[in-house]
Amino acid sequence: MTVSENPADTRCSNDRALQRLYTADPVLVDVRPAIEALPGMTRDTVLVSGPPLPWSEYTGGQRRAILGGVVHEGLAADSDEAELLLSRGVVRVDGCHDFGCVGSVAGITTASMPVLVVEDAESGHRGHCTLFEGETRGRLNYGVFDPAVDANLRYLAEVIRPLLAAVVRASGGIPLKPIMERALRQGDELHSRTAASSLLFLRQIAPALLDLPPADARVLMAYLTAGDYFFLRPAMAASKSMADRMSGVRGSTVVTAMAFSCKEFGIRVAGLGNRWIRGPLPNVETSHFFPGFTRDDIEVMGGESVITEVCGLGAFAQANALSLQAYHGGSADSMIDRNLQMYEITAGEHPSFTLPVFGYRGSPAGIDVAKVAETGITPAMNVALAAKSGGQIGAGSFRAPLAPFARAAELLAASS
Amino acid sequence: MTVSENPADTRCSNDRALQRLYTADPVLVDVRPAIEALPGMTRDTVLVSGPPLPWSEYTGGQRRAILGGVVHEGLAADSDEAELLLSRGVVRVDGCHDFGCVGSVAGITTASMPVLVVEDAESGHRGHCTLFEGETRGRLNYGVFDPAVDANLRYLAEVIRPLLAAVVRASGGIPLKPIMERALRQGDELHSRTAASSLLFLRQIAPALLDLPPADARVLMAYLTAGDYFFLRPAMAASKSMADRMSGVRGSTVVTAMAFSCKEFGIRVAGLGNRWIRGPLPNVETSHFFPGFTRDDIEVMGGESVITEVCGLGAFAQANALSLQAYHGGSADSMIDRNLQMYEITAGEHPSFTLPVFGYRGSPAGIDVAKVAETGITPAMNVALAAKSGGQIGAGSFRAPLAPFARAAELLAASS
Repeated sequence: MTVSENPADTRCSNDRALQRLYTADPVLVDVRPAIEALPGMTRDTVLVSGPPLPWSEYTGGQRRAILGGVVHEGLAADSDEAELLLSRGVVRVDGCHDFGCVGSVAGITTASMPVLVVEDAESGHRGHCTLFEGETRGRLNYGVFDPAVDANLRYLAEVIRPLLAAVVRASGGIPLKPIMERALRQGDELHSRTAASSLLFLRQIAPALLDLPPADARVLMAYLTAGDYFFLRPAMAASKSMADRMSGVRGSTVVTAMAFSCKEFGIRVAGLGNRWIRGPLPNVETSHFFPGFTRDDIEVMGGESVITEVCGLGAFAQANALSLQAYHGGSADSMIDRNLQMYEITAGEHPSFTLPVFGYRGSPAGIDVAKVAETGITPAMNVALAAKSGGQIGAGSFRAPLAPFARAAELLAASS
Repeated sequence: MTVSENPADTRCSNDRALQRLYTADPVLVDVRPAIEALPGMTRDTVLVSGPPLPWSEYTGGQRRAILGGVVHEGLAADSDEAELLLSRGVVRVDGCHDFGCVGSVAGITTASMPVLVVEDAESGHRGHCTLFEGETRGRLNYGVFDPAVDANLRYLAEVIRPLLAAVVRASGGIPLKPIMERALRQGDELHSRTAASSLLFLRQIAPALLDLPPADARVLMAYLTAGDYFFLRPAMAASKSMADRMSGVRGSTVVTAMAFSCKEFGIRVAGLGNRWIRGPLPNVETSHFFPGFTRDDIEVMGGESVITEVCGLGAFAQANALSLQAYHGGSADSMIDRNLQMYEITAGEHPSFTLPVFGYRGSPAGIDVAKVAETGITPAMNVALAAKSGGQIGAGSFRAPLAPFARAAELLAASS
């Protein structure tokens, strides 16, 4: 199937989109409450992962997380009141992506929550993402809301946000692309593995961190070094700012967003603007569980961290992060094969995001819906796994469904 | 060629040696002046890399570095006086290895120089190594001595040593093995690449570092984050403490040290104690140069960082650090092949130093002189390259000469 009457036109459009991706220069410029940072955000809005749905269609952990968000935000005294407000539309649910934001797992983003503000220095496009909740099993974005989760979110907003913002501003902004490029040579793929990038970030802010009052420096350092996942959120916000630059390029068949809710998977494509092309949830291709859990425990609660895959990271750079086989299952060879396969469905190779294992070849970047439709190969995605009972229980590699890519290719072909 | 009448005996001896390597638990416990830390050290001794030679046989950059060391130590006013004292034996030159120490490149270690003190918590064996001089081209260990090099060495001794020692002691010692294990999953092979381990070390000492007066914390942080090679020295000292544990195991054909001076390469073997078996210098197998330099500029000034290869690191774990192809030449495939080849000449596989690219197989560990002699395959070594004119000019992969391994195998066979 050809998308355009003239394939050369599509190639030009895709090259134009990819140039925007390649030249993007994401810089972390601030950390602000969502209400201040996100265009269009209101006090009574709860942003969530995935192509937006009516409130009634959110189920399981993502539904619980939305209710928790409403209570955390002080809009309702308890879950029952939150239900009422949501069903009456007094509190509305909307999609992160429409607010310049991406969500992790359930993706709950409410007005008072701190978001990382990443600006593409080339275009001014901004991407945002909330902060990592920490390594406890109980996290709002994994469908858990209780007093400990609530207190932790408050701690992030009241203690961590001002300190991190002060350090980021005092540093004059933190250029993220150099960190991302280096981290790819240090075993990160910048989605399921951010161990190196988290430490490279720490090194970058160290001078400003040491200018804080010592007690504050200790608090911030403890947060930043508590686990290996701090940098996932900067990587997500950076990816959002980069991917959004490609949006609206006429005739381009390149994907600008992938996201899923508890119910659906959806994509956006450069030549189709902000429209979501929806399909069924992804399949679990490989998985690995923390002790005591099995495949039967998995519940999909949403997720937009796959914006990293859209930019040639995550599963598209997994051959750089072979240690992940112990985290999300599979073998070194299968990870390398899966990574190579992604070259068959991408329109380009990222000149800065390189894969030493392939002789420094650029990572496959710019998922091309036409190539996906033609080959039947769909994007791989490295994801964390949530439990029906809430909390993270492991990690895995997902495969996107074919339908939305095929549909998008048809729509673009029809409109060309 | 069989080394022992009964190969099972050799196998048992090698297993015994390897158990000592595998169970070692190196901890950085202090940073002290060499005169205080190294058993047998005196004010008028200059320690250098390689099986020791008479003073008259040191040439080129290593000779210049020795003279610089004598002047730096205040034993002579200038190079001419240093020459005189050395030729008269008033100042003596000796090998680092005999003082529980390993040297980088020329390996100059004088009384006042700070050394990292690494103790194997299992056996009490200690290994030592001086501090990284920084990323300037002019470094004593690369054959350069001038007022800037002298001032930098003084800065390390007077400013950095006390601060680093305070932080290490306040931390109650820094266990190095967990850092090394993790770093291997983050793109380090812990010889030519220590980018991840240097940051993991920083994370480990962060709490103690923040307890320093802020001005001091800034100074130490600046030193630790100035480049990517801080951790090479802890890795070397740790490797020395681990390798020495294997020394003296009767009948074992496992190598406990490799080292070279400007003139010779030598090895020590567990079953032969502290005796050096000497041979010609290694060959350059791959190389890569900083702009403006070529293979003709290379001068070998010595080096004992190959103690890491003795422990299953460096070239023996290079498949974990494929980004090094851009630093020391070669391709991803040739690095993987060379790493696999090392399994043919080693007696074991390190249970803690693992290679995700080989499905978490343990790194080839315990170079077996009998296997080297039998196969003709000699150890690969990742090294930095020095220039005839002084300074680092690139990096490469060396191959050890066959002769000393063959000779050691003969000696062990004769003694069994």
